[in-house]
Amino acid sequence: MRADMQFLHRNMPAKKARGKVFVVIDVLRATTTIIEALSNGCTEVIPVATVDEAFDQVKKSIQEETLLGGERGGLKVDGFDLGNSPREYTRYVVSGKRIILTTTNGTKAFQKLAGCEFVLVGGFTNVHAVVQRCIALKADPVMVPAGLRGGFSLEDVVCGGMMLDILEKSGVALMDAAKAACILYKSFHRDLPEMARDSEHGRELIQLGYEEDLDFCLQTNVSSSVPVFRKGSITLD
Amino acid sequence: MRADMQFLHRNMPAKKARGKVFVVIDVLRATTTIIEALSNGCTEVIPVATVDEAFDQVKKSIQEETLLGGERGGLKVDGFDLGNSPREYTRYVVSGKRIILTTTNGTKAFQKLAGCEFVLVGGFTNVHAVVQRCIALKADPVMVPAGLRGGFSLEDVVCGGMMLDILEKSGVALMDAAKAACILYKSFHRDLPEMARDSEHGRELIQLGYEEDLDFCLQTNVSSSVPVFRKGSITLD
Repeated sequence: MRADMQFLHRNMPAKKARGKVFVVIDVLRATTTIIEALSNGCTEVIPVATVDEAFDQVKKSIQEETLLGGERGGLKVDGFDLGNSPREYTRYVVSGKRIILTTTNGTKAFQKLAGCEFVLVGGFTNVHAVVQRCIALKADPVMVPAGLRGGFSLEDVVCGGMMLDILEKSGVALMDAAKAACILYKSFHRDLPEMARDSEHGRELIQLGYEEDLDFCLQTNVSSSVPVFRKGSITLD
Repeated sequence: MRADMQFLHRNMPAKKARGKVFVVIDVLRATTTIIEALSNGCTEVIPVATVDEAFDQVKKSIQEETLLGGERGGLKVDGFDLGNSPREYTRYVVSGKRIILTTTNGTKAFQKLAGCEFVLVGGFTNVHAVVQRCIALKADPVMVPAGLRGGFSLEDVVCGGMMLDILEKSGVALMDAAKAACILYKSFHRDLPEMARDSEHGRELIQLGYEEDLDFCLQTNVSSSVPVFRKGSITLD
């Protein structure tokens, strides 16, 4: 096994993806929200790229069972049931429901991996569970940080670095980019919440009033759920 | 001033490039070769994307004054005068000559920055000179590692991190990606040649018999030349 890190996500042709397990990471906040929703009994999350697509999808479904979630500019979209804060996705709200989700960075990453055999959903909240699943799948792990507006997102790279650090200790070889992510994780591991608060994305969310989301998203290993993306849908398998 | 790092190079629309100075870095070996060639009296380097384009360009020029240089798969191209080893670009060979250069990673980065106002050529050999030029230009520095086959190249990111470390000490603010590059530089700075020898790209070059090129390319601050890319041509201004 050999683990890698894609510093920016990009289209992954099915041929190149064979024998690989991709871990999409959007700590602030899409993948943390997906992990939380499915842990709380949501039946499936459908990631879509645009707000229009989200409204189209919900029209096709039985209204009561489907919720619209996501953000633009960090804020809940007009007409949506939920924003992109994991704290909104409580058991009371999401249990037994399908969720159509569209966010600025995270849901785009899933689109680029459509058709790949193994795509997992990771965040700080389920680091250990994701690593165990990667090892069980015996495929080469590739961390895919969702990025911030197509650019670098420190918190996602550091989260991937935390997973890669454990994988390396389990005997998995690391590509250069994966080694670099590990070094970044080790440089921040003593205070991950502070790393997030001081990141570009973290500062934006604090300014929008979402500081509590940062605390939520920076919890490590509080969930054993490993959401899986397959055929356009994210479920707990 | 605010400095950034592009972990992968991409097309930079002129509008977004305003007020920025890009530093293209392909330590192994294109930018080190360009710095060496111009330091040794070469009059200009024309970076082109393909081998065909290189042959076309040379046909249009006065044969004696123009040399063809570059590599595919690390090796000199059939019919070319020079490969991509900076050690070939001695004063005796290149003084007074134009060079048409095509390489796998480095020359593509220049194409993507065509039309940008300020594009410099950097490597470990001219770190201090590049940083001084960035500061003199009073534009926001953006490090552009050339990458390895479109992916991550550790040695380029670490070289950019070395420049960013000095910029930060000069009072320049760093974006998250730039901070990350600085952390990576600091983690390797005690033995940069070992970092390069152990990198994916370095190992490939050693296998091809170019270990001496690594030693050459990892020398720091041996040149005060800052090549500038403008209108398709690289010169010392």
